[in-house]
Amino acid sequence: MTTSRFSSDVYAQRLAAAARATTEAGLAGLVITPGYDLRYLVGSRAQTFERLTALVVPAAGDPTMIVPRLELAAMKESAVGELGIALRDWVDGDDPYALVAAALGGSSVAGKSAPLAVAGKSAPLAVAVTDSMPALHLLPMAETLGVVPVLATDVLRTLRMIKDAAEVEALRKAGEAIDRVHARVPEFLVPGRTEADVAADIAEAIVAEGHSEVAFIIVGSGPHGADPHHECSDRELRSGDIVVVDIGGPYEPGYNSDSTRTYSIGEPDPDIARRYAVLQRAQRAAVDAVRPGVTAEQIDAAARDVLAAEGMGEAFVHRTGHGIGLSVHEEPYIVAGNRLELQEGMAFSVEPGIYFPGEWGARIEDIVIVTADGAQSVNNRPHDLVVVPAS
Amino acid sequence: MTTSRFSSDVYAQRLAAAARATTEAGLAGLVITPGYDLRYLVGSRAQTFERLTALVVPAAGDPTMIVPRLELAAMKESAVGELGIALRDWVDGDDPYALVAAALGGSSVAGKSAPLAVAGKSAPLAVAVTDSMPALHLLPMAETLGVVPVLATDVLRTLRMIKDAAEVEALRKAGEAIDRVHARVPEFLVPGRTEADVAADIAEAIVAEGHSEVAFIIVGSGPHGADPHHECSDRELRSGDIVVVDIGGPYEPGYNSDSTRTYSIGEPDPDIARRYAVLQRAQRAAVDAVRPGVTAEQIDAAARDVLAAEGMGEAFVHRTGHGIGLSVHEEPYIVAGNRLELQEGMAFSVEPGIYFPGEWGARIEDIVIVTADGAQSVNNRPHDLVVVPAS
Repeated sequence: MTTSRFSSDVYAQRLAAAARATTEAGLAGLVITPGYDLRYLVGSRAQTFERLTALVVPAAGDPTMIVPRLELAAMKESAVGELGIALRDWVDGDDPYALVAAALGGSSVAGKSAPLAVAGKSAPLAVAVTDSMPALHLLPMAETLGVVPVLATDVLRTLRMIKDAAEVEALRKAGEAIDRVHARVPEFLVPGRTEADVAADIAEAIVAEGHSEVAFIIVGSGPHGADPHHECSDRELRSGDIVVVDIGGPYEPGYNSDSTRTYSIGEPDPDIARRYAVLQRAQRAAVDAVRPGVTAEQIDAAARDVLAAEGMGEAFVHRTGHGIGLSVHEEPYIVAGNRLELQEGMAFSVEPGIYFPGEWGARIEDIVIVTADGAQSVNNRPHDLVVVPAS
Repeated sequence: MTTSRFSSDVYAQRLAAAARATTEAGLAGLVITPGYDLRYLVGSRAQTFERLTALVVPAAGDPTMIVPRLELAAMKESAVGELGIALRDWVDGDDPYALVAAALGGSSVAGKSAPLAVAGKSAPLAVAVTDSMPALHLLPMAETLGVVPVLATDVLRTLRMIKDAAEVEALRKAGEAIDRVHARVPEFLVPGRTEADVAADIAEAIVAEGHSEVAFIIVGSGPHGADPHHECSDRELRSGDIVVVDIGGPYEPGYNSDSTRTYSIGEPDPDIARRYAVLQRAQRAAVDAVRPGVTAEQIDAAARDVLAAEGMGEAFVHRTGHGIGLSVHEEPYIVAGNRLELQEGMAFSVEPGIYFPGEWGARIEDIVIVTADGAQSVNNRPHDLVVVPAS
């Protein structure tokens, strides 16, 4: 697969913003091991696990990329070279955590002999680590630095959540691609075929429509639709089934699509149609509530209230949505308790669902981007229950 | 893909041994999020990230599996049900770290209001966490428990490293399968074809010979062979190339193969043949040194000394090997500085290599299992440089 990234200017801006946010947070620096934050900051898709690869961004001074000598070649695809970031390689037997300490600048962190302190509660400044840093590296690094790290999410959250123009464009392209797949789903949903047969067709269509790969495919027919995280099975489709199809994948340079539509094999039972119409209103109410300044939990409540008013509050067993970008699930999470205020440029799913165990389920999901005065959806297929022929 | 696991008896024994080791280490308990340790202990391949799934094994008392309600169905494939492990599910909005504290038993860890303490340096007993636990969960869990965790590797190391009979058999099957692939590699190595063409054939053969999937394929021809972690490229093979082929994948129930052989397109240059013969002696010396009681670093030195004596010490730029099992890379690491004494049942690679930047490279790799008085290799293809026709 050919991979791509943005121009190095984009990463230079992001790094500068990250360093500023680190200073403002009163931290010694950021330590970013492989994962979405590393990809966001320098365009690297490195995947090392037991050998430490880490971008160190000190609050003051220049960033350093610490990388096992064996993995130096993999750095070439990233923007590290063009950005002039210092590469510090190491070999088996070296202590990579000492390199992290050096890259942070000796004065801002405690020495190795200092007792391990808790961030903010004693002298050394904390470092912030990427949320995917494994314990394998986090714990010995904390020991070397003499301080328990904090999550970089708090520093990078705003940066990662607010998509710039290039990211919005990437999410739009991904959304258009998955819409083209949903347009083809009715032809795959033929009674007698299994969920797995349908998923195989969808997998092919996801790639054919331009995604670099498949991230997930849920084909939940009949009672399987009542399990929000069902994937697919050998169950054969039959007349009268309600089928939840939730699909997506990354589109180069790596921004994800994620869209759900619900299908009915043959005309739906009137009670199902009635309940589905309530779900449709709930999804619409949540999207209509989106604008800068409204909190994430208010969006969740907007969908939930519509369902609760019709006695279906109990049937909606998950949060209303999740942020999306390089990662399929990222901040902001649209969930009760999240008082984060939405800002222009945030991108997230709005996907209420209703689930009746042993019977059926339905979900409607679009990715929306917060605009100056509302929301723009990157998915534009109709929201109606899509009726496909029963025979 | 159909997945499989061992019978629940195997997991019951492992859990009991893990609880014993936890008590002996003076720990409050183990907290195991998705990854190889979770798969090892209960046969679960759960892959949640931002929602906490965690097996909690208290030093005293019964284990608990904490799982997002959405993921309950995925637990069915594991041995959790058969083992009678308490399932504690949670939904968005709940505090899963409080559930971890409760599952550890209230008395053995500090309360939420206690200051965050460092394990072993104050009252609360430490908990040990799996090495793949992400910072996203580790840091808030530490805050809730009031104690900085330690790595469970120290507790689970011996258990995970010493393979039982079922695991040895699984590694043997995987070794036989990758040997069958190497037997077919010469027919793929035709001048004019690209490394990527060869890798595609190998990928097909890896699955055809019984692996559940491909884990990695290195086809390093000519100068690419001098980069130990090169994968494959559009470079066309030509007469005179030396080609490093390092391949492997998991074989149900998930134990990995990993074997390297080096090929020559046409008869090799005499100097190359001479240096390769030294590498062959180095690999043999390391395998011959394996027996219980010898340290990991002695095995590394056994290979290194042979190369150094012939002036090729600098050409061997990586460690001699890595443990293997459910994970392709795990303990024991065969590296300078590792004074771990080998024990019967340990499984690891012995893979010295020589690398001449811009020119060529070679590596020979077998997986060996420590026996009562030596080593048994699960790979049994000849170690000679394999000469394939140049036209």
